[in-house]
Formats: sequence, structure tokens, C-alpha cells
Amino acid sequence: MTGEEGSLTQRLQALEDREAIRDLIARYGPLADRGDAGGVAALWAEDGRYTIHGFGTATGHSEIAALIEGTTHQQLMADGCAHLLGPVALELLGDHAIAVGHSIVLRWTGAQFEAERVASNRWELRRTASGWRVTLRENALLKGEEVARALLALPA
Amino acid sequence: MTGEEGSLTQRLQALEDREAIRDLIARYGPLADRGDAGGVAALWAEDGRYTIHGFGTATGHSEIAALIEGTTHQQLMADGCAHLLGPVALELLGDHAIAVGHSIVLRWTGAQFEAERVASNRWELRRTASGWRVTLRENALLKGEEVARALLALPA
Amino acid sequence: MTGEEGSLTQRLQALEDREAIRDLIARYGPLADRGDAGGVAALWAEDGRYTIHGFGTATGHSEIAALIEGTTHQQLMADGCAHLLGPVALELLGDHAIAVGHSIVLRWTGAQFEAERVASNRWELRRTASGWRVTLRENALLKGEEVARALLALPA
Repeated sequence: MTGEEGSLTQRLQALEDREAIRDLIARYGPLADRGDAGGVAALWAEDGRYTIHGFGTATGHSEIAALIEGTTHQQLMADGCAHLLGPVALELLGDHAIAVGHSIVLRWTGAQFEAERVASNRWELRRTASGWRVTLRENALLKGEEVARALLALPA
Repeated sequence: MTGEEGSLTQRLQALEDREAIRDLIARYGPLADRGDAGGVAALWAEDGRYTIHGFGTATGHSEIAALIEGTTHQQLMADGCAHLLGPVALELLGDHAIAVGHSIVLRWTGAQFEAERVASNRWELRRTASGWRVTLRENALLKGEEVARALLALPA
Repeated sequence: MTGEEGSLTQRLQALEDREAIRDLIARYGPLADRGDAGGVAALWAEDGRYTIHGFGTATGHSEIAALIEGTTHQQLMADGCAHLLGPVALELLGDHAIAVGHSIVLRWTGAQFEAERVASNRWELRRTASGWRVTLRENALLKGEEVARALLALPA
């Protein structure tokens, strides 16, 4: 491989990494709204964590799947819901990455759609043998508290 | 072309395909909100279909354009509206692709913005001589019905 | 460099440009919601402009930063807010680019999240020595006025 090609390969790899991470995060909403607990959990690394501020932390696939299988999420699905995640801003750091962005949970009340949760999200990701996976997602309601705003920071 | 370069070309092509599809879908909202009926229709293949569950199916460019030209959409534009589509999760399958994601139609009521429709979307796309085009878009309100949740599945 | 490689480089560069622009725009919301006035301003070129229809135009980094430091934005942050920007449709024109898409400002009222602003956005961008920067962002509320719809047009 020439130096020229080597450089092209590295640039291509960086784009593929960013694309893979963006697609991984874009799968969360559709999987959650379908109630695919195993599919949601598989977005995370096996030791991955999902922290919902004011609620707690789920660690590992079975605890993350349990969030989807639990009564709160099942009621939300029965009512009608959309877990809409906006585009993320993304910092690629070799085999790790950090992405930040918003999420909105909309619920059908029977009369109208309401924005039940509007939150900030910070995603930490790691390249694994089976592709990029989430190692930590933190989520906090944007109700004026600094903890929620702080999640939206990217490394300088 | 060396094997190395051939592989690079294929990887580059896959990224270009994903980028083209993402951009195609991102054009729907701005075209719909401007009332550009021909522009909306041209996102679809000539034999493409747009199924709105609970409403019906528009087949081909003239029927799809008619959705935009119709009184329902024109009234929505006159009131003030945003067809916001979230990021899509995307599965590229050679010359075909499937993308899933959410859409929200916001309407200005004169007093506030309301989420009039919150829906799931499944996009089937095909590579044509003039680029990627939609062959089928299915849209269903997320009001708790399985038909709407099922649209959000991607091939395993 | 062979012609083959030259072509690959150009295609790669186009993807990198699109990725850089998408990421730049995706940073606006997180920076605005954190109140990072300098970070927001730095998304713009030094002579960049931000026009909010019905409000006015901020020109250059200090005026754009002042929008974030001002009492309106600070109150919004204190209440709790999300500046959610949807995916953009993007036209790359060499060293310039145009992107269009929606933005929603959600505010926590103390009782619920409300969509306070739903707007169209047109972004003009330029390749600078330090990367892509915004030269003009125009934003207008989608309340049924043609000026807001017109912002969503891309060059043919």
C-alpha cells in the first residue's frame, strides 16, 4: 500500500466510524418504540450502562432490556409513543467516541400528542470486535438544571 | 485498479449511497413545507408508492404530487407547519435499501404550535439511473397500534 | 497519484465536507442549550451573520455571542430548554454549501414542555482555513408566512 492509499484508508475509516455510530444511535428510537428489548440492549457493550438522571442506572444487557420490558415503558407503548432523537454532534477519539444530542418522548394521551420528556443525552461509545457499541448513555430532563446542560459538552 | 483500490472504491460507494439516501429523505420536509409538489413527487421512483395508514395509498408521481396540492396540505401550509423528520436508521442492501424513523407534523394553531401527527415511517428505496429514489414510504400514527410499531423494524 | 486515486480523493473529500457541515450544524443546539456563547459564535465565520426574521440580524462573533448572553436566552435556559434541530438537506457547491432544515425550541413551563418556536432555517456555509463555518443563518417562524417557507429552498 502506498502512503497515499494509506491516508485514504484512514480517512475512509474515520467516515465509516462516524456513519456506524450515527446509525447505531438512530436505531435506539425505532427499537424502543417497537419494544424490542433485546435489540435495544444490544446497542450497548455487555458492560454498558444507561443512566437516567433522577431515576437510576441500568448496567449490562439484562438491566437495560428490563427498562423496555418494565411496566412504565409498556404503558407508554400501549398509549402510543415516539422516542425521537435528534442528530448528534460527534467527537471521534480513535477507538472511543462521544456524541451529544437531544431526545424527546412524545405520548398520545387519547386526545393529543404531548412531549412527555425533553432531555439531553451524552453517549460514550467504544469500538468492539462486533462494531461500535455504547458504553454509557446519560439522559437528563432539560428543566433548567445544570446537570442536564452539562451532558451536552463535547471535549474541546 | 489494484485490489486494494477496488476495496476502497466499494467502501466509498457504500458511504456515498448512505449519504445520498439520508439526503433524499431529509429533502422531504423542506419540499413539503414549501408546497413543492413536483419536488416531493420526484423523491419517489416513477412507480413509487406512499401509503398513509388509515388514509390510503398514492401511486406514482401525479398521485403523490396531488397530496401536496390537495386542500388538507394547502390548509396546513396556510396555518403554518413543519414536517420534521428525525434521523433514519438505514440498512443498505446492494441496489435496495430500507430506512426507518419518525416524523412529526407541527401546526401553528394561531395560539401555539401543536404536534398534529407523530408517526412511524418505513422507507424502501432503489438505486435508479438518476440516483436513489423511494419505492415505498409507509407512514402510520403512533397511537398505540401494532401496525405503526411494525413499520419501525429493520431486516436482521 | 493515479487518476483513479485522484477521483477517489475527490469523492472522499466531498463526503468529508458533508460530514463536517452536518456536524457543525449539529453542534448549535448543544452549545446554545449549555449557554456556551463563544462556542456558538465560533460556528460562524468572523464576518458571519445570523438573521432571525421579525427580530433582526447579528453580525460577527460578538453580536452572535450576545444573543446567547442576553436575557431572553438566559431566561430560556433557566426555565429549561432544548434547541432541537432536525437533519438538514445539503447542497455542496465547491467551497460553499447551503443547508436547509427545521428547528424547534422547547421550553419547560413548570408544568409541561411546549414548542415555543418552530422555524425554518437556511444555512450558508464557506470553507475557511479552519474548516467549514456558517456565513449566514436565516431563521423564520413557520406561522404560515411565505418568507419562512422560502428559506427551505435548495438550489436546483
